[in-house]
Amino acid sequence: MPAAATDNDSARTGVWFVGARGSVATTATLGALAARKGLAPRTGLVSELPEVAAAGLPGVESLVFAGHDVATEPLPERALTLARGGVVPLDLARSLADELAEVDGRIRSGARADGEPQRDVAARLSADLEGFRTEHGLDRVVVVDVSSTEPPVEPSPALEHLAELERALDAGGSPLPPSSLYAYAAFRAGCPLAEFTPSTGPHLGALAELAKEQGLPWAGRDGKTGETLLKSVLAPMFATRALTVRSWASYNLLGGGDGNTLADPHAAASKTATKAMGLQAMLGHPVDGPLHIDYVEDLGDWKTAWDHISFEGFLGTRMSMQFTWQGCDSALAAPLVLDLARLLARAHEAGEAGAMGALGFFFKEPLGSYEHGLAAQWRALTQWCEHLGSLS
Amino acid sequence: MPAAATDNDSARTGVWFVGARGSVATTATLGALAARKGLAPRTGLVSELPEVAAAGLPGVESLVFAGHDVATEPLPERALTLARGGVVPLDLARSLADELAEVDGRIRSGARADGEPQRDVAARLSADLEGFRTEHGLDRVVVVDVSSTEPPVEPSPALEHLAELERALDAGGSPLPPSSLYAYAAFRAGCPLAEFTPSTGPHLGALAELAKEQGLPWAGRDGKTGETLLKSVLAPMFATRALTVRSWASYNLLGGGDGNTLADPHAAASKTATKAMGLQAMLGHPVDGPLHIDYVEDLGDWKTAWDHISFEGFLGTRMSMQFTWQGCDSALAAPLVLDLARLLARAHEAGEAGAMGALGFFFKEPLGSYEHGLAAQWRALTQWCEHLGSLS
Amino acid sequence: MPAAATDNDSARTGVWFVGARGSVATTATLGALAARKGLAPRTGLVSELPEVAAAGLPGVESLVFAGHDVATEPLPERALTLARGGVVPLDLARSLADELAEVDGRIRSGARADGEPQRDVAARLSADLEGFRTEHGLDRVVVVDVSSTEPPVEPSPALEHLAELERALDAGGSPLPPSSLYAYAAFRAGCPLAEFTPSTGPHLGALAELAKEQGLPWAGRDGKTGETLLKSVLAPMFATRALTVRSWASYNLLGGGDGNTLADPHAAASKTATKAMGLQAMLGHPVDGPLHIDYVEDLGDWKTAWDHISFEGFLGTRMSMQFTWQGCDSALAAPLVLDLARLLARAHEAGEAGAMGALGFFFKEPLGSYEHGLAAQWRALTQWCEHLGSLS
Amino acid sequence: MPAAATDNDSARTGVWFVGARGSVATTATLGALAARKGLAPRTGLVSELPEVAAAGLPGVESLVFAGHDVATEPLPERALTLARGGVVPLDLARSLADELAEVDGRIRSGARADGEPQRDVAARLSADLEGFRTEHGLDRVVVVDVSSTEPPVEPSPALEHLAELERALDAGGSPLPPSSLYAYAAFRAGCPLAEFTPSTGPHLGALAELAKEQGLPWAGRDGKTGETLLKSVLAPMFATRALTVRSWASYNLLGGGDGNTLADPHAAASKTATKAMGLQAMLGHPVDGPLHIDYVEDLGDWKTAWDHISFEGFLGTRMSMQFTWQGCDSALAAPLVLDLARLLARAHEAGEAGAMGALGFFFKEPLGSYEHGLAAQWRALTQWCEHLGSLS
Ligand SMILES: NC(=O)c1ccc[n+]([C@@H]2O[C@H](COP(=O)([O-])OP(=O)(O)OC[C@H]3O[C@@H](n4cnc5c(N)ncnc54)[C@H](O)[C@@H]3O)[C@@H](O)[C@H]2O)c1
Ligand SMILES: NC(=O)c1ccc[n+]([C@@H]2O[C@H](COP(=O)([O-])OP(=O)(O)OC[C@H]3O[C@@H](n4cnc5c(N)ncnc54)[C@H](O)[C@@H]3O)[C@@H](O)[C@H]2O)c1
Ligand SMILES: NC(=O)c1ccc[n+]([C@@H]2O[C@H](COP(=O)([O-])OP(=O)(O)OC[C@H]3O[C@@H](n4cnc5c(N)ncnc54)[C@H](O)[C@@H]3O)[C@@H](O)[C@H]2O)c1
Ligand SMILES: NC(=O)c1ccc[n+]([C@@H]2O[C@H](COP(=O)([O-])OP(=O)(O)OC[C@H]3O[C@@H](n4cnc5c(N)ncnc54)[C@H](O)[C@@H]3O)[C@@H](O)[C@H]2O)c1
Ligand code: NA
Ligand code: NA
Repeated sequence: MPAAATDNDSARTGVWFVGARGSVATTATLGALAARKGLAPRTGLVSELPEVAAAGLPGVESLVFAGHDVATEPLPERALTLARGGVVPLDLARSLADELAEVDGRIRSGARADGEPQRDVAARLSADLEGFRTEHGLDRVVVVDVSSTEPPVEPSPALEHLAELERALDAGGSPLPPSSLYAYAAFRAGCPLAEFTPSTGPHLGALAELAKEQGLPWAGRDGKTGETLLKSVLAPMFATRALTVRSWASYNLLGGGDGNTLADPHAAASKTATKAMGLQAMLGHPVDGPLHIDYVEDLGDWKTAWDHISFEGFLGTRMSMQFTWQGCDSALAAPLVLDLARLLARAHEAGEAGAMGALGFFFKEPLGSYEHGLAAQWRALTQWCEHLGSLS
Repeated sequence: MPAAATDNDSARTGVWFVGARGSVATTATLGALAARKGLAPRTGLVSELPEVAAAGLPGVESLVFAGHDVATEPLPERALTLARGGVVPLDLARSLADELAEVDGRIRSGARADGEPQRDVAARLSADLEGFRTEHGLDRVVVVDVSSTEPPVEPSPALEHLAELERALDAGGSPLPPSSLYAYAAFRAGCPLAEFTPSTGPHLGALAELAKEQGLPWAGRDGKTGETLLKSVLAPMFATRALTVRSWASYNLLGGGDGNTLADPHAAASKTATKAMGLQAMLGHPVDGPLHIDYVEDLGDWKTAWDHISFEGFLGTRMSMQFTWQGCDSALAAPLVLDLARLLARAHEAGEAGAMGALGFFFKEPLGSYEHGLAAQWRALTQWCEHLGSLS
Repeated sequence: MPAAATDNDSARTGVWFVGARGSVATTATLGALAARKGLAPRTGLVSELPEVAAAGLPGVESLVFAGHDVATEPLPERALTLARGGVVPLDLARSLADELAEVDGRIRSGARADGEPQRDVAARLSADLEGFRTEHGLDRVVVVDVSSTEPPVEPSPALEHLAELERALDAGGSPLPPSSLYAYAAFRAGCPLAEFTPSTGPHLGALAELAKEQGLPWAGRDGKTGETLLKSVLAPMFATRALTVRSWASYNLLGGGDGNTLADPHAAASKTATKAMGLQAMLGHPVDGPLHIDYVEDLGDWKTAWDHISFEGFLGTRMSMQFTWQGCDSALAAPLVLDLARLLARAHEAGEAGAMGALGFFFKEPLGSYEHGLAAQWRALTQWCEHLGSLS
Repeated sequence: MPAAATDNDSARTGVWFVGARGSVATTATLGALAARKGLAPRTGLVSELPEVAAAGLPGVESLVFAGHDVATEPLPERALTLARGGVVPLDLARSLADELAEVDGRIRSGARADGEPQRDVAARLSADLEGFRTEHGLDRVVVVDVSSTEPPVEPSPALEHLAELERALDAGGSPLPPSSLYAYAAFRAGCPLAEFTPSTGPHLGALAELAKEQGLPWAGRDGKTGETLLKSVLAPMFATRALTVRSWASYNLLGGGDGNTLADPHAAASKTATKAMGLQAMLGHPVDGPLHIDYVEDLGDWKTAWDHISFEGFLGTRMSMQFTWQGCDSALAAPLVLDLARLLARAHEAGEAGAMGALGFFFKEPLGSYEHGLAAQWRALTQWCEHLGSLS
């Protein structure tokens, strides 16, 4: 059980979810509300471990929630649905219905691909963020993207250079994928951002430029919660033991909203790309083997992953291992999302800007870092937290 | 594939196996002979990875082998038996029969519990080691214990203090378990020692004193090759992700000589003890769950382990993972045994003495260290190697 | 989904559980009450499949429940506890609390090893059964033993011959294990009996004699719900494909009341005996390999079993398979217990007496039959049901 | 170990493999040659089990082998390659090299899609079969198709009606897929046929007509050797226990020649079709879940399959099971191919004609039968064998 942190609660922090009525956002919101009332332990919150809390983070119970979504089913209902699927305790969903309804009242309508020029949409999204900050007297608002996975985008000059992007927007164009439009609006509104999905989001030359210009820290992408988490400890094990991995097959079964989105091969392309990238980096050579994500409605939010690894040892002897991971995706993701909000708030307070490589611990594709191994990422994270702690 | 090391071959190094005709020793000997002839890749040799080779190690092909055993089946036959079980390639066992026979000619009869006073046995064992060193003009001989696992011993004053031990030996007593008698003889003969088994070996107050007195480095115990290796990356993963492990069940199936020995619950007690100890250390709390080692003749040297881990995440959600490990025990152990011989030879050359905690990477019970996590052990090992390398 | 049966509801049937407040009995009672109100589907009830329903069985919703237990926690509370463990739906446990309380009012205090002569205890138990039958105007009462597993008994003449048994009871002796005392009382009260546990129960020469004398059908023993169920389809697969099974390792993890009882090796001896017996019968030769049942409190009623099977095919090629079974033990057992009550009621009505080998389909140790293969047992069961159906 | 059969060796039987130099054919040929010399046990041969041998079958050691292929690597080399992959014993492959070379001398060049009109190719293939029968004084020649899997075909009138087919061939057309061309040639030459692949082969209206006309028995299709074999015992288990299967995910990893062919999605379509069809038939309803076959070169002939089954029990409780199957595909298929040759030879001798539904036991898609459950297929097979035995 994580130790309690000595929190840094003088500053008031807002958390703005893109996809605020999705499974991850709902679970995270419910959990933070429960923590505030002392109704739930802090299991799964990395930011409560002493080595991370050392950074001096805003308390999880002091966070104020709001967000964008395009879905309309209110948070209290979403929470009950999750409870029926075994993701969160039913009693908790019931007893926090009022608090959830209050948060739901702060959720604004998100960006849709409806022809409205992105210049205007961005202005509206930024205004939502600024309104939230002002109205609640917040020191800062961290935006966390937990909306549905998008397909990958084609490169173009407007995406690479800020000046070109601004020109395109001025010209009434809509060059950005939705996740990047949110990132643009966040940065323009002076908000740090965590890209928890495999979508493009802030991962564009133009937006990296903008974040630097605005002095904003950001992190991504694609939360590392299941199979990829395991890969990030097993691959270094094989590598440091000088065992040659010959094939690694990865199969994922999941239902739920995310599963449904990923059943579309176009959207899944982003996810399989972020899932695949670490292995070669950690092993030092490409590895054969399929990687599938299959939608099985019946499984709901309960992801089941099976991996089969074939490897070679001394004198060419062939061996294998396999694992089955049965995790509840939203329960794994929700605390990480709160961790990221707290850590980015602190980084912002400390004046950090750009892609926070030290947050690679949380991501399948660690932007701002080349390290995919979990233990090395942990070291980087805790060293950074120690540094942040030493500043205050 | 590990990179080739720039080896330090001016010094000549002998490797003396206690249990020289066992599966691990035979595989290690065969592999080193194959490496000398360029007949096999160096997969599985940690000492060939650049971060470890940096220490400046004796070349694997330059090692000279000998040892003690109580079994008489000659090495060439043992190698054929292993080949038939799929542990080593049949062609290799056949083509290196002469070289194996040469090593076999240097295997001396080991210590038996036959009533001969241990003072006399120790003298004989030491003389065997010294004879080997002299005859082959070796700079040093590293002893590696890969003999059958013994039951644990009861504590006694003669085991704790060197003076008491010497007194007991002078009095014609036989207070030491066989593995510790070998360690005593090794230290008296000025040889560094690796305790690759879960037996007591050098892990006694009296022998630690002797090693210090003689200025000898040693390391132990119980090679970490399978399920415990996986635990040493998975447990830190759960811990740094703030997930609470609720139960961890560990089942091991194996045949072979080692399996046969461990089918005796008395002997297995040593192994289950070393296997169990790391989990609590890595997780910070005791964990429920059975740990069995079962002898299944049919499986031979092919260990199959299944572990089931139940854990709790955010808001108390229960999840689980399981893995199956299908490894060839001797193929996993043999390169580590060569690694240890090379590293202890270098440590000896560099004047190190006592329990080498930096070698904890190789062991289930890392003597001289409190760290059980593999990634942290890797860091300790490579830092130490860098230091050793800087000396030469 | 099983088809609805044309039930034979003119006769009124009572079900008397020994262990009426245990997990299996509580789940079965709750399920039958739910079926009566149309609140639950009939999944898992073999007696609802057309081939079995063809026997002309009493309707599951018409069954009247009562029983013995030595525990005092009332049924409505037991049901809530099971709901919290995910065994039964919480809403069901809540909405049927009154009906459960009504059944609980009919539970009588069971037999304890407290020195009271078994003659007197038996009389009291029989009187409880007769009272229930009379009071509720039942045509017959089927006793189903779902109490805690007992250790095996030593053979003795009083257990083998009815005359000797009666003599011992007359002499104030207490020769019977509790489960057999219940069986004696049931048979004396004219009740058919199902032995769902691995305990001795009716499986004694003396009691077989008594059942015959009283014209009563009975069946046993040890409900086949998990790993053994799988063995009973996999072993015939290997046998009819002429593949030689070389080893079969069976590991079971479970918590709950039953797990707790089986954590005592003395009690577990009964279970491991019934679990082990079928394999040799189905394969035609003994098979090597461990069989463990381990108590892991954390898992509750959720049994996790892992089996590893090594087999040999053409030209001696070695292959393997493994499975993991994650079943909810009470949810698997409860419908079978209802099936047995309905089938034994029908057999009694049809005048059958003795061990019903045709019910072997339900048991790990099929008394009255030598067949362990599930498919052959299914054929025997459905042929018998067709025969019973043709009588009415 | 299967009992020895009292064989019916007065008649001389030839076996003609289409794909005679493939893995399955090579393993089957080697195994029969080994049996002839008493060098191998008969494990895996269903036809050696007493219930099947009762049919009065030609002895496996008396079979004479030949065949068609388009590959040219000779059998002795193919056998060595298989031995290096662990499929057959190296010593066997070496010691039977001469006998394999003799069989290789009887392999004729197969049918290629090279523009030659199929009328002419068919005549040549038939002549090869007739030449083999005459030259070796055989009573009959059974053709077994073990060539590479083809893509499925589009329906057309020439494939449905024999008269149309003959017209098309007369007109110089080539309407048949290669496997069906072989079947046409076999039937024209008076040879029974087993279609061991998922290809079309004899499964066309026109060819069924021809077989009837010629009085020839045939059987198919797609040998049931791994995952589908398991499904055929597990699905009936769920069904007869009234447990509702909610999803069934099937993943297959394999390398080897067959794996390579199936890496082409076009060819794999035939295989996934035959693999998928049984489940719905056995469970009585469609079942959700992916089915993948992935080529992993590294695994060679060693197929690894993982299946995850989610099911629902009493009161809606969700449970799951999963299995991993690690089988050597050719070692599993080879004895079945010999079984089929022996059984079809006997059926031919007994005057049976048409699709032999009683051989459904051997196939993923049992032509001539609606039964997919293994136990029911076994009963059908053994009853048929008993009948055949009673004729002689
Ligand atoms: N759960 C995990 O373990 C995990 C791990 C890594 C990444 N992720 C990613 O997190 C994201 C959320 O996952 P989830 O399970 O909560 O999915 P979900 O489908 O339950 O929720 C997504 C939410 O995003 C909303 N949305 C869609 N388009 C939007 C738009 N244009 N603007 C605003 N909102 C929009 C949807 O209405 C929905 O409420 C996914 O992209 C997923 O890939 C999840
Ligand atoms: N293989 C692994 O993965 C692994 C991992 C950790 C530890 N180990 C340990 O390594 C040791 C060797 O394993 P193995 O598989 O080679 O076993 P093995 O049974 O094949 O070999 C042991 C050898 O020790 C010899 N021996 C027994 N008593 C002796 C004595 N008093 N003096 C000298 N020799 C003696 C035996 O005759 C035998 O040749 C075991 O203790 C095992 O627990 C092995
Ligand atoms: N659940 C399964 O899948 C399964 C399968 C096969 C057999 N069984 C057997 O069914 C039995 C019940 O299992 P459970 O999970 O319900 O266990 P449980 O521990 O929940 O219930 C057992 C009940 O028996 C009662 N009991 C104990 N001694 C008694 C006595 N002398 N007289 C009357 N009642 C007594 C206990 O108080 C308890 O209420 C066990 O023997 C188990 O081995 C269960
Ligand atoms: N091994 C199993 O468990 C199993 C089970 C079911 C079905 N099968 C089927 O059996 C077949 C053979 O499998 P395999 O592993 O031996 O494959 P393989 O690739 O090793 O052998 C196939 C052989 O067919 C030959 N061939 C290809 N086209 C031909 C043609 N037009 N005429 C004659 N020969 C031709 C190839 O040259 C090759 O020698 C495959 O279709 C496979 O799907 C195998
Ligand atoms: Na994930
Ligand atoms: Na069971």
